Amino acid sequence: MKLASLKHGRDGRLVVVSRDLSRCVPVPGLAPTMQAALDDWAAVASHLTEVATALEAGAVAEAQVFSPGHCAAPLPRAYQWADGSAYVNHVELVRRARGADLPDSFWTDPLMYQGGSDSFLGPRDDIALADDQTWGIDFEAEIAVMTDDVPMGVSEDAAADHIRLLTLVNDVSLRGLIPGELAKGFGFFQSKPSSAFAPVAVTPDELGESWDGARLHRPLLSFVNGAPFGRPDAGQDMTFGFPRLIAHAARTRPLGAGSVIGSGTVSNKQGTDHGSAIAEGGVGYSCIAEVRMIETIRDGQPSTPFLRFGDRVRITMDDAAGRPIFGAIDQTVVGSDGA
Amino acid sequence: MKLASLKHGRDGRLVVVSRDLSRCVPVPGLAPTMQAALDDWAAVASHLTEVATALEAGAVAEAQVFSPGHCAAPLPRAYQWADGSAYVNHVELVRRARGADLPDSFWTDPLMYQGGSDSFLGPRDDIALADDQTWGIDFEAEIAVMTDDVPMGVSEDAAADHIRLLTLVNDVSLRGLIPGELAKGFGFFQSKPSSAFAPVAVTPDELGESWDGARLHRPLLSFVNGAPFGRPDAGQDMTFGFPRLIAHAARTRPLGAGSVIGSGTVSNKQGTDHGSAIAEGGVGYSCIAEVRMIETIRDGQPSTPFLRFGDRVRITMDDAAGRPIFGAIDQTVVGSDGA
Repeated sequence: MKLASLKHGRDGRLVVVSRDLSRCVPVPGLAPTMQAALDDWAAVASHLTEVATALEAGAVAEAQVFSPGHCAAPLPRAYQWADGSAYVNHVELVRRARGADLPDSFWTDPLMYQGGSDSFLGPRDDIALADDQTWGIDFEAEIAVMTDDVPMGVSEDAAADHIRLLTLVNDVSLRGLIPGELAKGFGFFQSKPSSAFAPVAVTPDELGESWDGARLHRPLLSFVNGAPFGRPDAGQDMTFGFPRLIAHAARTRPLGAGSVIGSGTVSNKQGTDHGSAIAEGGVGYSCIAEVRMIETIRDGQPSTPFLRFGDRVRITMDDAAGRPIFGAIDQTVVGSDGA
Repeated sequence: MKLASLKHGRDGRLVVVSRDLSRCVPVPGLAPTMQAALDDWAAVASHLTEVATALEAGAVAEAQVFSPGHCAAPLPRAYQWADGSAYVNHVELVRRARGADLPDSFWTDPLMYQGGSDSFLGPRDDIALADDQTWGIDFEAEIAVMTDDVPMGVSEDAAADHIRLLTLVNDVSLRGLIPGELAKGFGFFQSKPSSAFAPVAVTPDELGESWDGARLHRPLLSFVNGAPFGRPDAGQDMTFGFPRLIAHAARTRPLGAGSVIGSGTVSNKQGTDHGSAIAEGGVGYSCIAEVRMIETIRDGQPSTPFLRFGDRVRITMDDAAGRPIFGAIDQTVVGSDGA
């Protein structure tokens, strides 16, 4: 089953979406919003699945055209956004880029930060920011899961059963603000503006053999200004699977229904210790910071610029037959005061 | 006007509460929940005020007894919990306790962390945790404000107008988990379990001259197992007022209605460089970590234990006439598996 939230009020209007992303239908009688569906998942999921089946069969008279441009984030605002950093290769590269070592424990104890969840961006919303000269505007292409209620202290095994939906994220990051903010010791805040999400969230069964219960084994495709930038496999080099990330988040408190748990920037190891751009035959990168690190190692300085106003980022993932699973995040960076 | 959320479903049932906290009345026709009221504050606040006026005049037939034991947190779950650390004296003591220096910038640039907001505790809910031996269970008594929608890049002056409600917080902290977690560089996560809130949130006008638009000038009263533990003035030594904290939070993204912004642990400077317990004639502390720091300076080691299962924490604030403004947070620490 595929679900989306059309832009409507603060929380969107839940729609069931056809597998090919061409049609959709609101389900106000079952759940007016995505949050309402996740709040009552055990009761409504089977009914939503019936609607999805009927929609697939062409048996829903009130079906309408589905347009990603009309979509909010699947959860336009959420009660929790906890973003892991499960691809330790990315963490190692980014830390090297700022001259910090990688403690051994990072390979056994997940990194996770609490992100802002009150103002998510839709898949086609502009990334509006005040400064493209010093803030170092970057994208981070990630996978995220949405959970139902997760009890405190949940085991990794039990956590797997709380994954209800998956989607894609652009975890917009301000590289210029990160070093100063992390030096203060309290983690990210201003350096992580609103994140954007794919048009559609899907139940795990939609992913077939690509989903093993912990990792999504498909290339995650990123483009900058139309040019391929990354295609690493999200199932590869993911040191911690989603059930482990959920168990980590729930160690000392329960997680409310609709908690969004992110994978961190998808990153594959390539060669001995660093990756290659797509133009060089590699799988590329899911953020600009990584390629700048490679450039620094190779050339002594980075050459790929961060994003400027007018630049465009596209993030998507295809199924084995080449059809988009979630629809695409496709955003333009703009000045927040109309610049 | 005073507002509360009676326990009901996931989001509580909004009630208008009498000034003396004795009576309340639901207002489903105006706003079923606190979040709904904050989402539509400009339209509903005046109507809620009319109900409050009628309630005060004894003119509301359907008024019922108000019981803090029936209360959830004012927002049982929120889209944002951003906790500042505005009493830099507290930051300095806690950092000294773990052997870390205080950078000069901490006096001019607010510290703030993004906290979990999906599972807040009501004022009389148990603090249920798995480990009272090594986790170092502590309370932190704080003031918090709730905002309506705040635009990105808001100025400090303009931020003041977005403060709609104030309340008290117990920002439960696990001191034993903090050093390891902060060393990872991504801030708090497991070391900050669910926070608890006072029964009632009040509009700024309820505070009279105690509220100057940025700081709440009243002693914040904390008790551990019934004994007075702290009574520092929340208006004193607050390096950054709430408008500054809001502007800091909104620098790179808008804040959604119902964002909860915390002051951090209320802490007064006493004497030359450290405080005194109430038994010694001082104003005491709003968390256990501070007194342990003082003990370490004085005795070479801390003697006040962190909280154990069965221990009780009470946090409240009286008006100038000695009447509780918000009602009391009054919680018992218990083992999460019934220990």
